[in-house]
Parts: sequence; structure tokens; C-alpha cells
Amino acid sequence: MLAVVIHAPGDVRVQEVPEPRIEEPTDALVRVVAAGVCGSDLSVLRGLSPLPRPVRSGHEFVGVVEDVGIGVTTVRPGDFVLAPFSTSDGDCPHCRRGVPIACEKGRLFGEFGPDGSVLDGGQAEFVRVPLADTTLLTVPGTPPEELVPSLLALTDVMSTGHEAALHAGVGPGATVVIVGDGAVGQCAVLACRRLKAERIIIMSRHPRRQQLARAHGATDVVTARGEEGTAEVIDLLGGGSGHVIEAVGTLQAMRQAIGCTRPGGQVGYVGLPWDVTLPLWELFAKNLSLSGGGSNVRAMMPELLDDVLKGTLQPGGVFDADHALTDAPRAFEDMDVRRCIKPILRP
Amino acid sequence: MLAVVIHAPGDVRVQEVPEPRIEEPTDALVRVVAAGVCGSDLSVLRGLSPLPRPVRSGHEFVGVVEDVGIGVTTVRPGDFVLAPFSTSDGDCPHCRRGVPIACEKGRLFGEFGPDGSVLDGGQAEFVRVPLADTTLLTVPGTPPEELVPSLLALTDVMSTGHEAALHAGVGPGATVVIVGDGAVGQCAVLACRRLKAERIIIMSRHPRRQQLARAHGATDVVTARGEEGTAEVIDLLGGGSGHVIEAVGTLQAMRQAIGCTRPGGQVGYVGLPWDVTLPLWELFAKNLSLSGGGSNVRAMMPELLDDVLKGTLQPGGVFDADHALTDAPRAFEDMDVRRCIKPILRP
Repeated sequence: MLAVVIHAPGDVRVQEVPEPRIEEPTDALVRVVAAGVCGSDLSVLRGLSPLPRPVRSGHEFVGVVEDVGIGVTTVRPGDFVLAPFSTSDGDCPHCRRGVPIACEKGRLFGEFGPDGSVLDGGQAEFVRVPLADTTLLTVPGTPPEELVPSLLALTDVMSTGHEAALHAGVGPGATVVIVGDGAVGQCAVLACRRLKAERIIIMSRHPRRQQLARAHGATDVVTARGEEGTAEVIDLLGGGSGHVIEAVGTLQAMRQAIGCTRPGGQVGYVGLPWDVTLPLWELFAKNLSLSGGGSNVRAMMPELLDDVLKGTLQPGGVFDADHALTDAPRAFEDMDVRRCIKPILRP
Repeated sequence: MLAVVIHAPGDVRVQEVPEPRIEEPTDALVRVVAAGVCGSDLSVLRGLSPLPRPVRSGHEFVGVVEDVGIGVTTVRPGDFVLAPFSTSDGDCPHCRRGVPIACEKGRLFGEFGPDGSVLDGGQAEFVRVPLADTTLLTVPGTPPEELVPSLLALTDVMSTGHEAALHAGVGPGATVVIVGDGAVGQCAVLACRRLKAERIIIMSRHPRRQQLARAHGATDVVTARGEEGTAEVIDLLGGGSGHVIEAVGTLQAMRQAIGCTRPGGQVGYVGLPWDVTLPLWELFAKNLSLSGGGSNVRAMMPELLDDVLKGTLQPGGVFDADHALTDAPRAFEDMDVRRCIKPILRP
């Protein structure tokens, strides 16, 4: 079968690989209907993520269950399923506390584990999903084709944007500043509107991304960056905001987020901070709370899925490019140079 | 009159200075009954705090109001008052949101402001208190002498310890780890017990400090530090704690706090982080919340004062040395080399 394989920084290929098979009784085999390309895939491609290679990439995918191991009891062949970017057993102390990203048995798709073994990713025709009953979320019936992008968004960016909003303490009437106009930032706008925030300011320099953010519910756009952008936000709000979302993962973005936060405010950080080293004094001096990390997608998805099925939440618009799986290298490149926000790959 | 003046790193003196006087209509003049020496005074003394000098030090004091400006309406001469370490007007957006430490008109005692002017500290016979109505907290009647240490503790360390516990999300039934056995760490133990935490683990190598922590309600003592200490805590609890308090302010202590926190847990940080630069990845990888900063003493004091007056909260034990004001250099030195936890100075 075909799969996307990252061989080295800058070297992404679509190639024939052995088909996955059921290895454990709790595995499911999923035929991938659609997979996303994530900013963190680009991190792997750029060599920021210190993974061994080659690796079958992709941790955002939806598909149809093809086969299940004998220990799988709730997921059935033919089910349309959403896969969060990490597996979880639903039963360890972390899962029970709502932190399945830290599941004691959990693995990340498309990444090597501490033991050196890899869990192959989902940018492929088929993928093996361990701990299937507690990892996969089944969508009732067969969703219409036009719903697929929104369902795919739930497997990472929409859940991440929602959790970022929770980390930033967003609730009814809140004023929120969002640093980052990529897919997560765009989903954070949707999440803030869904949580009934009153004012949603997105910091974005790109007209198309500004437009999408406004369509998602952003009330204000600040185009300046860095200190100038911070000053503009402070001016716009008559002071900093109590709720700021950092959805980039660079030191500049984090400083911008901190700068936009009022004393005692909350910063939700979900950008992968590969190279962000922060003097703690910058937080201390403003009495800030910083809360975030990788999203607990499996815990976030169910309530978001309800809204997607009802049609009140439509995050699919973050996918502004649609490619055959064989066209993955081009999709990666387009995203890398920001020619698109986020591509879908179709096996 | 006599006041403690820090002239240069390592050079602290008690010397004759001009008496303060009412300068603004909202000022009060307070005759100091007792003043504390704070870890942050040592930071000034060691040259860590980048303040111009000389400076009249001291930001923890209680006393009796001697005189008030014509604009002062609630505080009266003869009142026994507690002074938080910063002044506040009770009316700016930050004060209204419960963050008086960030008051737009606020000043820190014993520190220079952005305009280069200094607010003289309270390690002195008399001290001028700006914004007296909203800064000072009046104690009803004349408190008995034996209550003075506990009242003095409210002006900084007890309020800081309490707020640290709130930042760490401590509540009924919680398991808490406290990194730091100084006055703030000791007060954090009291605060956690008061907030009905079930298990309170203090990390301390000093027998006398361990003893005080146990008297305050600590259920466990871990004597190891660094990675060894972290491993011991993890072993003791069968995993990290969801609530960890950092009350030191060094990189080692912060790493120890992070290491003791379970995925998704909360770290309350109140140690002054002069030189703590942290890779954000360390927080991201564990989905941690980090919340803290300088304490909003004025907002914390009222409910704590009630308990001190009822006798259910007795933080005065953190003062284990009692000196005449004239003996301040010796008190500073004893604290600096950890011969005592925290000294009282009596003008």
C-alpha cells in the first residue's frame, strides 16, 4: 500500500510499504478516508523534532474500520471513526483524570516511543490503531462527504483550539486575544465563539486568514506583530486581556501573548514550543497563569462531535487545500511556505 | 529616627535618617511595632535585585497609626494596622479584579519606582504609607503582644503561602508537594491544612524546619533534593502530585516542582525567580499549569486575619529570631546563612 514516509529533513516521499495488520487483540485496522497535514509534521520534516527516521507520518485521520482484534468489543468493522493523535487505554490514572495524552499505555501516531519502536502514522491507505475501543471515536451512521473535513479537524486542531480556550479560561462574555492564524488559531476562534466569548481578537497579517477568522467569529483583527502588535492590542482593549491563546510555539509568539495579557490573566499555550526558553520573571512580574500542552483530543472530541453533527460547529474550513495522498510532498511544501493553511490528503 | 538602610551588596546599616512626614492627603504615618526581614531583602543585599541604592529597606511591618492626611477617611490615629508589601488604591481595574499587586498607583515599600523615586521601607521607627485607606488593614482593638508575630506574617509570607496554595489549586482532600522550607514554604503548609488538603509533603533537609512544618500540618517530609528528591516523591505518591508549590525561586527548585507534578497538574510558583530561565517544553510535555507571581497580599489578608484573631491560624512561628532594630545587620546575616528562618525587628 501507499504511505507518506519522512526520510530526512526536507525529504518526504509517498512510497509502497507493507500493509499493517492486527498485532494485538485490542488493535483495529482502519482504512483511511482522509488525513491531515499538521504543523508538527512540518517540525519533523524540518528536523526540529528529534525523531529517528524514516517514519510513516500523520496523526490526524478519519476512516472506516476494516478489521478488529479479538479483544475489541465496541468498535466494529464498517464503523466510521475519528482517531485522536495519541492512543489511550481510558483506564490509567491519567486517562481517568481527563489527561489521555499522558496515558501510561498511550502512543503518538507517526512517532517513535521510548523503547525505539514506532507507531506508524495515518497518512497512508491503512493504519493500525492500538487500544481501539478507547482510542477511536465512532461517528453514528455514515457521515456525508461534505462533513469529512470538519470531522477530520476534530482529530487534532479543533480539539486543540478548544482546549487552548479552556486553558485560557475563556467563558461567556470573555475578551480573548489569539496569537496565531494557522489552523489551531482559526479553530481557537471557533472554540471561543462556541464558549460565548464576547470579543475575539486575532493577530494575523494574512488577508485570507483574517477573512477565515472573521467568518469563524473573530470580532477584531490586529495585523501588527511583536511589540507593535502588543501595543495595538493594549490600546484597542484599554489594557491587556485576561484570556490569551498562544497557538504558534515560537518565543516571539509567546512574548506577544504575554505582552497582551493583563496582570493576573491566563495564557493558554498550545503551540509546540521547540525552541522557547522563557525567563520566568516575565510571567512572575505580571502574575500570569500559563496553562497548556498537547491536547487531550480523546477527551475533547465527544462534545465537539455532537456540535459538528448538529451543524453548529464547522471547523472544516481550515482545510483550504485538497490533495490525493500521492501528492503529499506538494501538500507539505505548500503548507510549509504558507501557500495554504492546512491540506487534506485523500488515499 | 533610626532606619535600616542597604547601601550596597553586603552593606546593610542601621542609621539616623530624616523622619517621614505626610506628603499626600491620602498618606498615613505609621509607628512601626514590628518589621520582618524577607528573603527578597536578602536579594537586594546580595545585589540580585537591580535596585539603585542606598534604600531604606523593609516591606513587612505592623504598627500604630500616628497621623493621617486630610484625605484619609477610614484609618485613624491609634489604629493598629497591617501593611501589605505594596500599596494599592482599591479602585483601578487591577484592584477591582483582585490583583492589587498590579495597582496602577501602587508602589512597593523599600523599592524605587519607574520614575526613580523611592518609597521608603518599614524597617524603621516610622514609615509613610501612601493610599492609606486602601492599603492598610486595621486590626480591631489592641492586639495582645503574643499575636504580633502572626499578624506580621500576614503582611507577606502567610498571604504569599496562601496564594501559592490557591495558585496550585489546593482544596479539600488534595495531595500537595511543597518545594521550599523557608517562611513561605512553612506558611504554605499552614495554608494547605487550612484549605483542608489531606496530604502535605514538604521537601526539607533541615531538622528544625522539618519539625516546624510537621507542627504546621505537614504529613510527610522528603529530605532528598533534585532528581533524587523528585524520584522519592513520585515513589511515595505512586506518581506525581496534582498540586505543587514552588517557594524558593531557583531553577533547581522549579525543576524539582515540575518533576513532582503529575501530567495535567498545577504548579503554584511564588519564589522570586531572579535567574530562572525555563525551556517551555518542560511544561508542555507534561501539560502543566504554572500560576503565580508576587502575592496580592491586600486581597488575601482579610480572611486570614479573621482566622488569626480566632486563633485557628498561627503563622507567627516562622519568626524564630527576635532582634532590636539596631541589631538588623546581625539579623540579616543570620537569615542569609540560614541560622534562622526569619527574624523580627523591633524598633
